[in-house]
Amino acid sequence: MNQRSRTDMMHLVAFLMMPTSHHHGAWRHPESELDFDGTEYYRTTARILEDAKWDMLFMPDVLTVYGNYRGGFETTVRHGGQGALSMDPVVIASCVAAVTQRIGLGVTQSASFIPPYLLARSLATLDLVSGGRAAWNVVMSVSDAEAQNFGMETMQDRQLRYDRGDEVVELVQRLWASWEPDAIVRDKAAGVFADPAKVHYTNFDGTWVKSRGPLGVPRSKQGSPVIMQAGSSARGKQFAARWGEVVFTLQHTVEDMQRYYAEMKAAATDAGRDPDHCRVLPAVQCIVGSSEAEAREKLELLDSLIDPEVALATMSLHVGQDLSFADPNAPVEDIEIAQGSRGSFDVILQGTKAHGLTLREAAVRFASSELTPQLVGTGAQIADEMEAMFADRACDGFVITPTHVPGCWRETSAEVIPELQRRQLFRTDYAGSTLRSHFGLPY
Amino acid sequence: MNQRSRTDMMHLVAFLMMPTSHHHGAWRHPESELDFDGTEYYRTTARILEDAKWDMLFMPDVLTVYGNYRGGFETTVRHGGQGALSMDPVVIASCVAAVTQRIGLGVTQSASFIPPYLLARSLATLDLVSGGRAAWNVVMSVSDAEAQNFGMETMQDRQLRYDRGDEVVELVQRLWASWEPDAIVRDKAAGVFADPAKVHYTNFDGTWVKSRGPLGVPRSKQGSPVIMQAGSSARGKQFAARWGEVVFTLQHTVEDMQRYYAEMKAAATDAGRDPDHCRVLPAVQCIVGSSEAEAREKLELLDSLIDPEVALATMSLHVGQDLSFADPNAPVEDIEIAQGSRGSFDVILQGTKAHGLTLREAAVRFASSELTPQLVGTGAQIADEMEAMFADRACDGFVITPTHVPGCWRETSAEVIPELQRRQLFRTDYAGSTLRSHFGLPY
Repeated sequence: MNQRSRTDMMHLVAFLMMPTSHHHGAWRHPESELDFDGTEYYRTTARILEDAKWDMLFMPDVLTVYGNYRGGFETTVRHGGQGALSMDPVVIASCVAAVTQRIGLGVTQSASFIPPYLLARSLATLDLVSGGRAAWNVVMSVSDAEAQNFGMETMQDRQLRYDRGDEVVELVQRLWASWEPDAIVRDKAAGVFADPAKVHYTNFDGTWVKSRGPLGVPRSKQGSPVIMQAGSSARGKQFAARWGEVVFTLQHTVEDMQRYYAEMKAAATDAGRDPDHCRVLPAVQCIVGSSEAEAREKLELLDSLIDPEVALATMSLHVGQDLSFADPNAPVEDIEIAQGSRGSFDVILQGTKAHGLTLREAAVRFASSELTPQLVGTGAQIADEMEAMFADRACDGFVITPTHVPGCWRETSAEVIPELQRRQLFRTDYAGSTLRSHFGLPY
Repeated sequence: MNQRSRTDMMHLVAFLMMPTSHHHGAWRHPESELDFDGTEYYRTTARILEDAKWDMLFMPDVLTVYGNYRGGFETTVRHGGQGALSMDPVVIASCVAAVTQRIGLGVTQSASFIPPYLLARSLATLDLVSGGRAAWNVVMSVSDAEAQNFGMETMQDRQLRYDRGDEVVELVQRLWASWEPDAIVRDKAAGVFADPAKVHYTNFDGTWVKSRGPLGVPRSKQGSPVIMQAGSSARGKQFAARWGEVVFTLQHTVEDMQRYYAEMKAAATDAGRDPDHCRVLPAVQCIVGSSEAEAREKLELLDSLIDPEVALATMSLHVGQDLSFADPNAPVEDIEIAQGSRGSFDVILQGTKAHGLTLREAAVRFASSELTPQLVGTGAQIADEMEAMFADRACDGFVITPTHVPGCWRETSAEVIPELQRRQLFRTDYAGSTLRSHFGLPY
């Protein structure tokens, strides 16, 4: 591979999800802060990240309290599993915007259920008042539980969801373009606030969505929010190649990352785009110690805090089948999985190297990082691994998922980032003020 | 009337609307700040208000760029009229939440177009992270221009809009009640994050809206956001009497205020509510000077900055008829108004004491405060007027609309509020931390 042939730098994004991100024991860590119900929690995290020059913080979103294990959300809620809470990420990102100057603010919003005019408006407002720092992670909702919060019974099939999603993104971008960049005049003496010749109706009339416009939000410093995507199915990857300026992905191994990276760059090129304007960032966890042994002990402590019940609940969600019917002490290979869920289950078994484990043991292993790589060691060791993945074109940087918060952000910022900076793999200061400038994306 | 018989204190709410609130010349004032496109503008205003112990800042909202004059939005946009901008008030309130501790955060959101699950979630998140300081001003959208941004052609009629609105508020409140107040446990040692027995499905199945729930947002310190309303039609007043904990109203005279106040308190009582839990706050403007003469000069300067074209555009909106057909130099009594708009036009003429003026002159007078009282004088004189209205049961306090921002907030806070405090008509400090505690509303 092209070791050290790259002249660009890597990008670092912090993944914020309350109370549980990918590691299901993390919230129980003695140093984890759990005051997600106030602004201080977000301010502390954002300032650590901004001081260390991270590109962005990024929040996932699901429009339901999640759960299919034992038929409902009880286990997830009791043990603080993924999806126990679902706060509005736009509200939290806006809180962060007010107390930071440079860091990007990535929020997930469903193209399936949020009316495009509202989607366009909230993201454009966040982008405007933050000085051009917003990103929209476009997701198509998948679960019937979400549909049922919006008065429907079931979701559309995947092809239709994505076809509709294409139209929603197109409309949202058209609404964002309502105001030309220099439409605002603010001439008090002449009494001219803005130039109406530079404000345009949208008149979008699609198959699924319509909107007349214009949006009532002028252009931000970066023109419009960055588009994020995380497509993994064939149709999803096609969508990501068309729209994604930052692509987030979960992969198990360096080889999987390289395959996805090459595929996405080729697909963006095929879609007529500059592949450098499609930044591919796989998720990894960093467990930092002053020695490798200390780091391994940290991970052991964290793993010991994973409740097997919540692990089975999260695994049930990812498999798409309630696994409570099975004996958790049975060998995982013996579990009878429904036809439609077999593929996902096999992926999990392979990704967690679960062969020879019981179902419960496999679930706990899954609930440690949800198949994403765990980088465990000193700052220099972790930087070595990141450098190799970056040089070997497995990625353009990383979405780093947390363990204990905010401690893990402090440790990664203090131990790993200086190593990356020493190797000229990560910025020592922001070159500009907008998220597009951090990512090297065009206005 | 019951002069000085009241033992409660008045409530003060600041009205934030960019670039123009009720006074259409204000943005052109030499001291007006116009950096609405960054967080500093909102932080400065919020801190002035919080330092002076205001109850709340409050933002209106319309889901369109407004305009029917000369057939479109051009005049409004050019001259910075009301509705030239329409940024997401939830984003702005969230920015303010992060930099304040006590002041309430009132946001308008349309019950007509925002799916109830999203409405409930964004407001509950704002309420949670702000420590219990959110209020929802419930509006039913009225204009076809708004409907057209959401893929519809026209609005429903008023009765249906309000019937649907009743159902939306009921559902939103049910979603807010998903988590019982003590559902969150956060017991790291036991691995119990929350008690699922205290988290409930909503299973709301109405005529217009359905949602299964639960919402993924635990209870805030004040239980749920305060409900605001501004009903003025017969059906609107019925809605306000049912739901409104803070009722905002535009009235021309003290007598009108008293009539509305008595009517609303009676209606709340008839609806089975404690009338003290329905706070009625009419809008007024404060123009403060070191002498009455100086204050009058200030208002003259402000009025001289009203562009007659934008005045006619705003009047056209309020009348519901494009007035560009008429000669602006003709006597206002001679203008031929369409049948459906005659009533609104007559209200404006009466409210602005427009008889004998030209159409243009009447419009400029309207665009000075949109019929709401202007209190012009020294801090003591303005406090006198406010005290009289409060004692005479014309109100429970005021929504104060700005002139130059943030100067007018500084002047009102420095000159009027200390006068009110000296008379024991306004708090000298917040008694509690939640908006409900500021307003004396139950959890």
